[in-house]
Amino acid sequence: MNIITISREFGSGGREIGKRLADALGWAYYDKEIEIGIARRMNMDENFIAGAIDRSVTANIPLHFGRTIANSYAMKQQVDILVEKQRVLEEFATASDCVIVGRAADVILSEYEPLKIFVYADMEYKINRCQGYAEVGENPTRREMEKAIKKIDSGRMKYHSMFLDADWGDKRHYHLCVNTSGIEIKKIVPAIAQYARCWFDNQNK
Amino acid sequence: MNIITISREFGSGGREIGKRLADALGWAYYDKEIEIGIARRMNMDENFIAGAIDRSVTANIPLHFGRTIANSYAMKQQVDILVEKQRVLEEFATASDCVIVGRAADVILSEYEPLKIFVYADMEYKINRCQGYAEVGENPTRREMEKAIKKIDSGRMKYHSMFLDADWGDKRHYHLCVNTSGIEIKKIVPAIAQYARCWFDNQNK
Repeated sequence: MNIITISREFGSGGREIGKRLADALGWAYYDKEIEIGIARRMNMDENFIAGAIDRSVTANIPLHFGRTIANSYAMKQQVDILVEKQRVLEEFATASDCVIVGRAADVILSEYEPLKIFVYADMEYKINRCQGYAEVGENPTRREMEKAIKKIDSGRMKYHSMFLDADWGDKRHYHLCVNTSGIEIKKIVPAIAQYARCWFDNQNK
Repeated sequence: MNIITISREFGSGGREIGKRLADALGWAYYDKEIEIGIARRMNMDENFIAGAIDRSVTANIPLHFGRTIANSYAMKQQVDILVEKQRVLEEFATASDCVIVGRAADVILSEYEPLKIFVYADMEYKINRCQGYAEVGENPTRREMEKAIKKIDSGRMKYHSMFLDADWGDKRHYHLCVNTSGIEIKKIVPAIAQYARCWFDNQNK
């Protein structure tokens, strides 16, 4: 199977690239399906899973509680989620060619040799993009938005570092890094799809 | 005019990407032509220019001589070369659509808003590639090769830092970063050419 993983800075349009890329290639697309899959397997609420999946195993455990108490309930639950997540991702990865957005799938599925893409953009562009998504009545300032973006990306970095001793976003870890600043994403996706086809042709020869 | 600048780690195949990209797009390609152009303008040897162009202005001047002696002959010559280089690059940039490899053209021509591509690869791949280029009788060890690659890239980084307060190779400074590890370059160039077309369509709309 051919797998593309999309890691992305919040607000860079990585999810849109992933979705359009899957459409362009005619491949399966996995995003929130990952939490839904875990929630079903664990008989838990998918929103709880979505929250837990973005945090490192130790992040929810009060410091005074000590990280050494490995069998604490909270930590055990986080580890269980991780185990199920790996199973769900492997299920997707072996079912058909697919594009997976986020969830450290680039590392968790590394033995499947995915094409690893990182999507990033200038802060200015990310703020504009996020403000475009704000709902009526929500009027975050640019400063608030920047703070939120940085916080979310910091969480993604920490989560990623649980699995890999490399900086999230370090270009050496990816095959292609795409800067979406000022770019209309739907215009560049056909080229990324062609890149992916060439890349897999090369790998599978 | 549309300009693509290729910055690249030594041994990553950036030059090959640049040449093939120019061919695929039917654009002019500039590489050694830059030194030839400067040498003609300054009535100097192009090999001397090639050596000088890879070093920072102050690199050739003995430390005890002091960097403050700005009108020293050696420094003046380096500055003259820089000035001519800028003129040659601008001449190329305004003549026709083109691909320019290295020479900090990404920064020197930044007001022309080039598509800035960075090409990189794992050390293993770069060493293999460089060994493939070694001539008969030259048998550099992998260790020697790695040392040479690091030295050359360190020089490129220093040269770049004369013009821009950003790390050479930092993905934020580029629009697209391509990891060529294990890739047959001619297979991915059509996709990069398509990416460039989409990118310029977007910019020129």
